[in-house]
Parts: sequence; structure tokens; C-alpha cells
Amino acid sequence: MQATQENPSADAVRHTVNIELGDRSYPIVIGAGLLGHAQTYAGLPKAHAAMVVTNSTVAPLYADAVCAALSALYPHVGRVVLPDGEAHKDWTTLNLIFDALLSGASDRKTVLFALGGGVVGDMTGFAAACYMRGVPFVQLPTTLLSQVDSSVGGKTAINHPLGKNMIGAFYQPQRVVCDLDSLKTLPTRELSAGLAEVIKYGPIADMVFFDWIEAHLPALLAREPAALAHAVRRSCEIKAHVVGQDEREGGLRAILNFGHTFGHAIEAGMGYGAWLHGEAVGCGMVMAAHLSQRLGLVDEAFVARLTRLVQAAGLPVRGPALGADRYIELMGHDKKAEGGEIRFVVIDGPGRASMRPAPDALVREVLARCCD
Amino acid sequence: MQATQENPSADAVRHTVNIELGDRSYPIVIGAGLLGHAQTYAGLPKAHAAMVVTNSTVAPLYADAVCAALSALYPHVGRVVLPDGEAHKDWTTLNLIFDALLSGASDRKTVLFALGGGVVGDMTGFAAACYMRGVPFVQLPTTLLSQVDSSVGGKTAINHPLGKNMIGAFYQPQRVVCDLDSLKTLPTRELSAGLAEVIKYGPIADMVFFDWIEAHLPALLAREPAALAHAVRRSCEIKAHVVGQDEREGGLRAILNFGHTFGHAIEAGMGYGAWLHGEAVGCGMVMAAHLSQRLGLVDEAFVARLTRLVQAAGLPVRGPALGADRYIELMGHDKKAEGGEIRFVVIDGPGRASMRPAPDALVREVLARCCD
Repeated sequence: MQATQENPSADAVRHTVNIELGDRSYPIVIGAGLLGHAQTYAGLPKAHAAMVVTNSTVAPLYADAVCAALSALYPHVGRVVLPDGEAHKDWTTLNLIFDALLSGASDRKTVLFALGGGVVGDMTGFAAACYMRGVPFVQLPTTLLSQVDSSVGGKTAINHPLGKNMIGAFYQPQRVVCDLDSLKTLPTRELSAGLAEVIKYGPIADMVFFDWIEAHLPALLAREPAALAHAVRRSCEIKAHVVGQDEREGGLRAILNFGHTFGHAIEAGMGYGAWLHGEAVGCGMVMAAHLSQRLGLVDEAFVARLTRLVQAAGLPVRGPALGADRYIELMGHDKKAEGGEIRFVVIDGPGRASMRPAPDALVREVLARCCD
Repeated sequence: MQATQENPSADAVRHTVNIELGDRSYPIVIGAGLLGHAQTYAGLPKAHAAMVVTNSTVAPLYADAVCAALSALYPHVGRVVLPDGEAHKDWTTLNLIFDALLSGASDRKTVLFALGGGVVGDMTGFAAACYMRGVPFVQLPTTLLSQVDSSVGGKTAINHPLGKNMIGAFYQPQRVVCDLDSLKTLPTRELSAGLAEVIKYGPIADMVFFDWIEAHLPALLAREPAALAHAVRRSCEIKAHVVGQDEREGGLRAILNFGHTFGHAIEAGMGYGAWLHGEAVGCGMVMAAHLSQRLGLVDEAFVARLTRLVQAAGLPVRGPALGADRYIELMGHDKKAEGGEIRFVVIDGPGRASMRPAPDALVREVLARCCD
């Protein structure tokens, strides 16, 4: 699928970023006016049935349009509406998808469509990975966070009471469709949460992009289409480059988790859903930057600059008062822990990240410095 | 791993059958006295922790010996004991494995060991596929059925109330260890159930093996080690050959499901666990043979010969009285159904199988002929 402009109602801007993974390669299509057009879905696997998985917030906005467009390609188009929110990213909710599939007209070729944010995408992807040992699925991310991060790269999962994303699969979608129009209806708090993952790509990979975000933050917060289009495109390019080199997170891919070890502890410690994932990651990046500074990898000016940008994006920069012991306990459950040692993504000089363990005392210093 | 005889307490007979799947290749090691020897586990992935998953029947027999042997290689060796039986092959039981992993010393390199029959193997494999998006696992099948079929080939799954094995993954083990000594403690009913899958390999792939089974059935039922060793080895060879050509069941692999479409309907219709899987498959093969005959593919003598062997193995050859409508409804949920059409594995002449749909009327004739 090449960048095209055949849809007269769409903005002139349409980009395609390809994820190169051999026979699991797929395109990320970025543009406006995409969700409701049958052309958007041309060339996907043929099947007797399609199933749109969405949530109670997104369904009233886009589900009818998507189902209508899919009806041109699939004889049966079903839908299942999940409760909204990270708190529902569990087996009980996942089973609603299986129930709908097994009660309906589905078979082992049925194509699933994940219409919504990161939670819908993660759950639909995991359902597709497991249903009859694997059916095709398509990501239709409707939040900034899912467009720039979670819908891309094939990580799918549900949460376990003892840890976030502990049960899941690496399972690549057939296509990702980022309709920029869907960002118009996004609550401000979720726009900010998405910006956390956009900002992330600067320190770990591209300080020119970081400069650009600093300069264009007002435009992004004002949802100017050209600014959002560039932010989504560049984020997807960086993620595609990283995932193309390390699909299953044997090494490099872990840098995408900058801010996530602290962030996951905040999310789990506060109870899933109290903090948005992007909020926890924003705050977690500030904490990870402080840790990098204490390890002698970046200077105070860099930490201050990152902190200012995170704060200006509308995100928290101070962690909740969980207590250092609880933070460390929660981080020990994180998937990045190995052999009992907690490993952190640190900034190895602006624009470059790496993973390493950190002395307990330094981590406690950071927690004391960054938490209420 | 080559066939070796370095373990003086083992029988002289030890075979290795390799599953050739590129970087997912692995050996099936077949012999006596394997489970309790550290040498059996040499060369497996190194890790901080190993977790033995077993059930309440098998644990008292072999878990201590396996854990002791693994202690030579892994600093932490945990175990989790599941309730026994197909009725427990569900999410609730699967979650016991996740709970044990997340409460213990495990991390993303922890190696799982499935010690038990097909249910333990399917659940442990699926847990390994999903835990932290994938950790290594090893199959230690202790029943004839799991040694000749379910532990080999990477199919893992749990059941859903609306269908057997509906939620799962293709996920290959690192190694399969078939300890023939474990067959000594197998209940007679389970020995017969395992013979169903052994018999299966004849009609679908190798009538010379079928002749051998007919000739050696008394020896197999008497558990003569040499006969069991040959049955396990030849079954694994045939399965390895099929799986090596079609890992994800795009086509050929489906022939391994001979008898399973009818069989799954029996299992689901009677409630999982009422009939053993092998019992249902034995009866299902007789039904599928009748269907093959009605399709003009085999003659009555072949059907009679297969029926005699299944019956002589101690397996049922008549289906329960579920009613034809219920059978057809249940078979419609089977994974082999596509686009609403039920497809059957039929014998296309002795020693050769294929998949095809069958007219509803013929299926009803078979059900009328074969059910009480």
C-alpha cells in the first residue's frame, strides 16, 4: 500500500509507514477521513465474517461508520462493545470477545478490528492471537497514545492482579489505520497522555524530533492537523525502525519502555485506571531521567528540559507517595526484571538509550526526589 | 541431541526423533528412566528459575524426582499442582499457573516443565506462550496419548464452554521427553485412550504401521516395553513429518485430526471429562471411516477392520445418543468449520487422508448408523 490521495474527502496529507518484519510486515496508514471508507480496508484477508471490537466510549462515535464500510467487504460484520478503561483489561473482559466470536458467525478466518485506544488494541490483539490459535486482526487506533505507540509493533496483553501486561503475545496486525480525525474527539487528558509517548521518542532516539516537539507543543495541544500528522508519522517511523530490528524485545526494543518501569509501578500502585498509562509514563520518564543523571549519563540541564516539556504537555512530573519499598516491590514484578534484578531504561546521552540495573540506593534517592 | 546410552540405569533403547521447524526445531527423546536424571535436562535454556506444572494424580508419582533432577540446573525450582482432568482445562486453572509464577521467583526467562498428560501439556504450553508474552517450556508427557500426540507439535490451548481448544496458541516446546517407565503406572482406560491416537497414524499415513499395531496389540495392552517403545517412536516420526511440513495447520496437518470432528462433538456433548479424549477419538475414527465409505473412498472391509482394532484396544465404537441435530451443532463450532461448512478428515484410501465437506444427509446417515 503506497501513499495515495484517491479519497477526495480526506486531507491531502496521507502517509504510509511500513513495519518490516519479513512475512509479518504491514503498513501503518496515517491520514484523515479513513475510518468510514471501504477503500481503507481494501486488500485485507478475505473472510466470511469480520468482528469489530470497541468500547462503550468509542462505539457511539465511530462503530456504525466502520461497520458500514466493512459490510462492503465481509458478508457478516459483528461488533462487541467492551467496558472502557484500563481497569477492564482483564480476562473477564477478554472473554466477552471470545463469547461474541463463538456465539456468532465466526470461524478460523474471521478478521478482528480493534476500534479504540490502547486497551481495546491490546485486548483485541491478544484475542486474535488466541482465538482458534490465531486469526488476523487490524488496528484502528482512535487515541493519540495508541496511534503513536501501542497499536504498532504487535505487543498484545491483558493485566494480572500482580502485574501489568503479564499475560499476552507478540502478534502482528495485518494493518494499522491511524485516522487523525478521531483525535478531534479525544478528551484533553488523553491527548496529554498520548503526548507522553510522542515525547519519549526524542530522548531515546531523535533529539531533532525533541526540538520539534518543544517548538510545536502549542500546535499539538491545539490539535492542529499538520502538527498531529507529523507527530504521529515521526513517532511511527521511529517505532517501526526499532521493532523492525528487534520484534520480540531481545534487546534494543526495550528502549521503547523508557519511563515505563517507574510508570508501571505508579499504575499498579494506584490501581489500574487511576492514572492514565501516558500520565504514568510521563512522570516515569522524569524519574528515569533523574536516575540517568545520578548514573552520570546526562546533566541536570537535560533533566530540567525534559521535565519542563512533560509538564507543559499537561502531564504529572511528581510521583504518588507509595513509599520507596512499595515502588521497588512493584518494579520487581515488571517484565524488565530478570533474576531478581530490576533493570531500567536510562538515557545514555540525549537521543540514545540503554538498559541497565541501578544500585538500590540510587533508585531510592530518585524516589525521594521525585515523589510527593 | 543424538541417541545415547550414557545413563546406565536406562534401558538400552533410547530414540531421538527430531521435529524440523527451522529455529524452532527440537528433539523428542524416547526411553526409560529419563525423568529423574539431571542429564535428561542438559542443554536446556539457562534461567534463574524453573517451574514444574503437574496435576494431583501425577505429582505424587514423579514430581519429587523431576524437581530434584532440575535442582542441579536451576537455582529455584517451583511447582504448581493443578486439579486433574479435561473438565479443568479452563481459564481458572490456567490462572493457577500465572499466580504461581507471579508469586514466586520467576522472571521472563523462567522455564516451565509440563509433567503429566495432554491437559497438563496443553495448559502449560499455553501458559508458557502467554506468560510475559512467551517463556520457554519443556514437555514431560506421562501418558501414552500425550507421548504419541499432544506433547508433539506445539498446539496448546484451553477449552471454552462453547468449544474445545478454542483459545490457544501454536507454541513449540524446547524438548519433549517421553519416559516409557511412566506408562507402567497408567490406568488401563488411559492406555486404551492413548492407543486411539496410535491407531490413528495407520489409516492416515502408514498401513504397514497399522499391520504392526494389529499384530502387536496384545503386547501393547500388556505394556511390553519394546512394543511401547516402537509405538511411541513410529507415532512421533509420523507426527514430526506432518508437523514439519505444516506447523500452523494451513492444510496437511489437519489430517492428524482424523476422528476428531466427531470426537470433539462427543466430548463437548457429554461434558468434558465424561469421555476421555482418546475414547472419543476412537469412536470418532469409526464414524469418520463410515463417512469415508459413504463417500466412496474406502470399502466396508476397511471400516470393519478399523472398527475391530479400535474395539480390541478397549475403546468405544458406538457414539452416545446426543441426537443428530446436537452433533451437527457441536461440529459446527469445531475449528475445522469454515464459513458455516463442516469439514471432515476422511480416509482417501487406506493410508491416505484428506479434508472435505460432506453432505448433511450423509453425516446424518453415519450418526444414525453409529450412535446408540
